[in-house]
Amino acid sequence: MDQDTKTRILGAVDAGFDDQIGFLSELTAHPSTRGNEQSAQTFMVEQLVARDYTVDRWQIDVNEISALPGFSPVLGPYEDAVNVVGAHTSRTQKGRSLILNGHIDVVPEGPLDMWDSPPYDPRVDDGWMYGRGAGDMKAGLASNLFALDALGRLGLAPAADVFYQSVVEEECTGNGALACLARGYKADAALIPEPFAEKLVTAQIGVIWFQVHLKGLPTHVAYAGSGANAIEASIPLIAALHDMESRWNAPENRPADYAHMDHTLNLNIGKIEGGDWTSSVPAWCVFDVRMAIFPGQSIEAAKADIEAVLMEAARQNDFLKNSLPEIVYHGFQAEGYALSQDGSVNAKAAIGALESAHGTVNGDALDKAAITATTDARFFGLYADTPALVYGPRAEAIHGFNERVDLESMRRVTQATALFIADWCGLEDI
Amino acid sequence: MDQDTKTRILGAVDAGFDDQIGFLSELTAHPSTRGNEQSAQTFMVEQLVARDYTVDRWQIDVNEISALPGFSPVLGPYEDAVNVVGAHTSRTQKGRSLILNGHIDVVPEGPLDMWDSPPYDPRVDDGWMYGRGAGDMKAGLASNLFALDALGRLGLAPAADVFYQSVVEEECTGNGALACLARGYKADAALIPEPFAEKLVTAQIGVIWFQVHLKGLPTHVAYAGSGANAIEASIPLIAALHDMESRWNAPENRPADYAHMDHTLNLNIGKIEGGDWTSSVPAWCVFDVRMAIFPGQSIEAAKADIEAVLMEAARQNDFLKNSLPEIVYHGFQAEGYALSQDGSVNAKAAIGALESAHGTVNGDALDKAAITATTDARFFGLYADTPALVYGPRAEAIHGFNERVDLESMRRVTQATALFIADWCGLEDI
Repeated sequence: MDQDTKTRILGAVDAGFDDQIGFLSELTAHPSTRGNEQSAQTFMVEQLVARDYTVDRWQIDVNEISALPGFSPVLGPYEDAVNVVGAHTSRTQKGRSLILNGHIDVVPEGPLDMWDSPPYDPRVDDGWMYGRGAGDMKAGLASNLFALDALGRLGLAPAADVFYQSVVEEECTGNGALACLARGYKADAALIPEPFAEKLVTAQIGVIWFQVHLKGLPTHVAYAGSGANAIEASIPLIAALHDMESRWNAPENRPADYAHMDHTLNLNIGKIEGGDWTSSVPAWCVFDVRMAIFPGQSIEAAKADIEAVLMEAARQNDFLKNSLPEIVYHGFQAEGYALSQDGSVNAKAAIGALESAHGTVNGDALDKAAITATTDARFFGLYADTPALVYGPRAEAIHGFNERVDLESMRRVTQATALFIADWCGLEDI
Repeated sequence: MDQDTKTRILGAVDAGFDDQIGFLSELTAHPSTRGNEQSAQTFMVEQLVARDYTVDRWQIDVNEISALPGFSPVLGPYEDAVNVVGAHTSRTQKGRSLILNGHIDVVPEGPLDMWDSPPYDPRVDDGWMYGRGAGDMKAGLASNLFALDALGRLGLAPAADVFYQSVVEEECTGNGALACLARGYKADAALIPEPFAEKLVTAQIGVIWFQVHLKGLPTHVAYAGSGANAIEASIPLIAALHDMESRWNAPENRPADYAHMDHTLNLNIGKIEGGDWTSSVPAWCVFDVRMAIFPGQSIEAAKADIEAVLMEAARQNDFLKNSLPEIVYHGFQAEGYALSQDGSVNAKAAIGALESAHGTVNGDALDKAAITATTDARFFGLYADTPALVYGPRAEAIHGFNERVDLESMRRVTQATALFIADWCGLEDI
């Protein structure tokens, strides 16, 4: 790609950037928590149709994916789980195909009084856009779309097929991305602009979700000694899980990508609910746990360890030993994935193309990072032989209050993405 | 009272006992948890009207009671809080007046799968009636009503005014009983057949309810180290509260009625709720606590101690010290009450009358007990100068699963109650 084309692409992103901010604001205004993504997906369909992409909108069918590797169990139906893909079909087919992936689902906003402004009423202040999902990862969805737009503004299109994906379920199972694979969407590389501060993600951890259900005999608190408090029974189990967390994080268990990090694998007690009356000894308690695993760590072995740890702790507890906890898997059973371990020509070429694009925009080398979260990249990398580049804008307080994304960072990522597409796919005239 | 009258009264209770079991079954079938007492109260009104009592049914007005001693704060409105009183007005007025009190509210039934049979589909098995509220305390409401019925069956009525009360809110505030006082219902003694196994309650503890609200900065669990887990932050606070519980129970703090009991004051974590997403570090957690106090222990001093304990524990916690807990009082602020400390002539006479009645039915002495729960007795004893006798049937698993009441015990209590009424109020012909 000649320097003039590069310069024109950068300028074309700039030319569309006000529109891009407007798009991001409108998309962020949709409160697309799990189960409520429909209006946001309808908006995405409208945007894709307006741009003449071939749009595929479908409801995920659990039966079609439940036997596939990477599937995570779900509680409840998928009647409201709708994926959207917009396809660009190249006229010349002379380049390498590409998946531009992003997730439309956002995590719950939490108590509104913790936000400085309403989470779904996005606002821009001092170069940041605030709102739930603005960073994780609607800015990425905007970046993917407006990178393609920038090429179009120059009368150009990718010289290979490009599939623009807006998927659900990234935040709890990844089954949205898996359903795209099952539907036949394949390409030579994938790009996922998750908000990791313009670094290329070289490794991501895996995640297991599980619920621990405690149940026992309640009683009037007047006889608390003869009852068993299911809420307090959770405390030694949580302590035992943290001991396991320390053990898993020990230096001898770390793969190379994480050798330098003391605490990669975080255990999180994300939810708890128990009891129904202040003066009744609670008969039940349920807590939800997220635990990470290293790339290469077996999910089945990890689950067996989790179960053994919980049961051993339960057997040491007077109440729990007679009323062992029930463990329910209700979301992520996600393996880790390390792009760094992909020695394929494709992977090297894709990384090289992104390094070049990033360098053109920023004038410096592409930083790389092993992250302590999971992304949908694992589906492409592990189950479709497709190198998946996670590279997106800087955001702060993702999953927190006053989540925000750096708009200039989004501009740079959009420019790098447009350059990457031009390089990877090649260009053809519209 | 001559022996013949006593014998006829015992027989009259027996004669009505099948009906009484039917009444108890029908009353227990009403799921009268807090806020849902209306159908049960309507049933009570029908029963009282059918017996020609003067019926007073009214909605509790918080404004009329909130300045009174013994009031407990409430969260939410009282639109659904309805008391029922049936009054018998004596023709001759030659005896001592009496309040027969019972509460219609029951505590939540908890998970249905923990019950051997549905909690609101009462069944009788081997002399026990099973069902939520059968023991606590619908058997007592039945006993009060059918004791009066037994006298009526003999063509007799109490020779003093008797107020039959079916109140709400016993299980959370006592404001139902307080509203009866505020409405002007007074008498020379009160009887409350709470299910304490045919023992006379000589002392009851006080109860304080409070919620502890924790709130902090959440984040994506990938950065758990920089977030603060509000659920786990509750653990050191619960531990500190248990230390306080031990301190309050120390021998030097026990009044005479409880000197022999090692652990009278129970702290109960009755409810907990926190977080909304497994992979978000939870920003908030709320747990509900019930703590008991001794008779004579000041509520204000107890609250000050609770607050100091929580704040000191919070200040030792890295997260909590920057985000101190909020303490919300949302129910019981109930003082303890000791009938044993009531040296009045009335109290002695009432206890004597009950001892005699119990002896006639059972042939043995009336056992007495200091209990580790509260009852509405405190309102009569502390704020209306009315000795309040708590004396009711044997029940098991109150506030638990498969709650049950011993029907023969209910029969004996009904007989003792009828004899007590006859003695205390005297008798007149209908």
